[in-house]
Amino acid sequence: MDRYDIAIIGSGPAGLEAAINAKIRNKKTIVFGNDNLSKSLVLAPKINNYLGFFGLPGTELKNKFKEHIDKMDIAINAEKVNNIYAMGEYFSIMTSKENYEAKTVILALGMEHTKPVKGEDILLGRGVGYCATCDAPLYKEKIVAIIGYNKEAESEANYVSEIASKVYYVPMYKDEYQLNSNIELVKDSPVEIIGQNKVEKLILRSTEIATDGVFVLKDSAPPEQLVPGLEMEDKHIKVNRKMETNIQGCYAAGDCTGRPYQYMKAAGEGQVAALNAVEYLNQNRE
Amino acid sequence: MDRYDIAIIGSGPAGLEAAINAKIRNKKTIVFGNDNLSKSLVLAPKINNYLGFFGLPGTELKNKFKEHIDKMDIAINAEKVNNIYAMGEYFSIMTSKENYEAKTVILALGMEHTKPVKGEDILLGRGVGYCATCDAPLYKEKIVAIIGYNKEAESEANYVSEIASKVYYVPMYKDEYQLNSNIELVKDSPVEIIGQNKVEKLILRSTEIATDGVFVLKDSAPPEQLVPGLEMEDKHIKVNRKMETNIQGCYAAGDCTGRPYQYMKAAGEGQVAALNAVEYLNQNRE
Repeated sequence: MDRYDIAIIGSGPAGLEAAINAKIRNKKTIVFGNDNLSKSLVLAPKINNYLGFFGLPGTELKNKFKEHIDKMDIAINAEKVNNIYAMGEYFSIMTSKENYEAKTVILALGMEHTKPVKGEDILLGRGVGYCATCDAPLYKEKIVAIIGYNKEAESEANYVSEIASKVYYVPMYKDEYQLNSNIELVKDSPVEIIGQNKVEKLILRSTEIATDGVFVLKDSAPPEQLVPGLEMEDKHIKVNRKMETNIQGCYAAGDCTGRPYQYMKAAGEGQVAALNAVEYLNQNRE
Repeated sequence: MDRYDIAIIGSGPAGLEAAINAKIRNKKTIVFGNDNLSKSLVLAPKINNYLGFFGLPGTELKNKFKEHIDKMDIAINAEKVNNIYAMGEYFSIMTSKENYEAKTVILALGMEHTKPVKGEDILLGRGVGYCATCDAPLYKEKIVAIIGYNKEAESEANYVSEIASKVYYVPMYKDEYQLNSNIELVKDSPVEIIGQNKVEKLILRSTEIATDGVFVLKDSAPPEQLVPGLEMEDKHIKVNRKMETNIQGCYAAGDCTGRPYQYMKAAGEGQVAALNAVEYLNQNRE
């Protein structure tokens, strides 16, 4: 397997600025993200505080970013990253499709602003999970409820439905849902996940579902779930001024490292993370 | 005297991004800098790692920045800041022309890359100074040598020549020098400043000057000279992740806070400094 120098998780301003700097420094780089680059950017009606662009709608600023990475031949890999394991010499990055290896990782995950469902934290790992693709085999012939926050969750649900005996899908967005016919669509709002030692029920506003497991599929899993052993501080990834996390070779940048949640701050941190990763790689060159 | 909410010292990417954010948050702001905005930016042949602009010459990126602040009615005050004193409730900012007051200060000084002259550090405060305008009165009827790193130093030299008995001017740049006729121009390179307890001589490559004082006039004085009491770390201003210095209400951003010396990093820090200054002001509102 080809081992990358730098794997960047996230395609918002922090991830893209990291990618640009990594590429300029001739590091073999892979960027995981999505085609829209950044959900929050695309939704911003007007941005006045990104130095050099005044009064641009978010979509236009996104286009400028896209143009920039296109000119530098930087591609975005749209596979969802489910887990990152620090293996000592390198990191193992598991997506819904494949495994990758990289000597360093830059987490530019953004910030998940949706509140957890009551009970989600308590039953995490005891029936509650964030990665259906990873944990589906545990639910062979069992009942699973999936709370999906985005369209991508549908394909995960479809995959689970091939293994589990029954799948309920609770969408947290409006769309035409593309679900296997054996999946039961539940248009209702989750209130609480309950159970004694493990998940027993998902309580919704007007009904309840008896279930063995609940997958909560958001844009990104909590960082400490994504990268086991990652140190957090006040719900953000703990970093120093070099954007180093507590795990050697693992950096973080942007909203996931703390407030203010701003594009310029994010991009600046992406640059610092990338340049320090480059220095780390150069020092540890065989 | 009108007291500003935020005084920003420097008009590079860090200072400008701080100014933009301060203005958006409705803070009464003053920016000290120069019409060219940033010397290093203007000299950069091509910039590829400022997200959103690919392959722009520095002058063009500077124009984009200028356009941005013009659209927001942000003016640059070209007075040189000589000293900043923390007065408890506010800061007193002394320029070559006037005194200003501000509740908070953001230092976006950039980085002075010229090496000190041998002996400069040792005799600092004992005949060596960085602010001719401030200290000229000490040299009434005495001899002064001025090492000038830029055109602006000439007017300081002219001022000193009205007070001192003799002024030597050693330019570190090539230009048409506009100096009073009583100033002696010395086109030579400084090697060492020497003296027992105080300055006695400036040694140059091919001559030496007996003198009572030496002013070293660079683009910016060392931060710890500019702001007495400011804590430094490895030649940079020590800051935390909120861009706070050791002095309450005093923030720093950009190259002066440490490597990497990069525009995006600088701008990101300017934003963080400004938004934390805003928060500090709002919390301390009478």
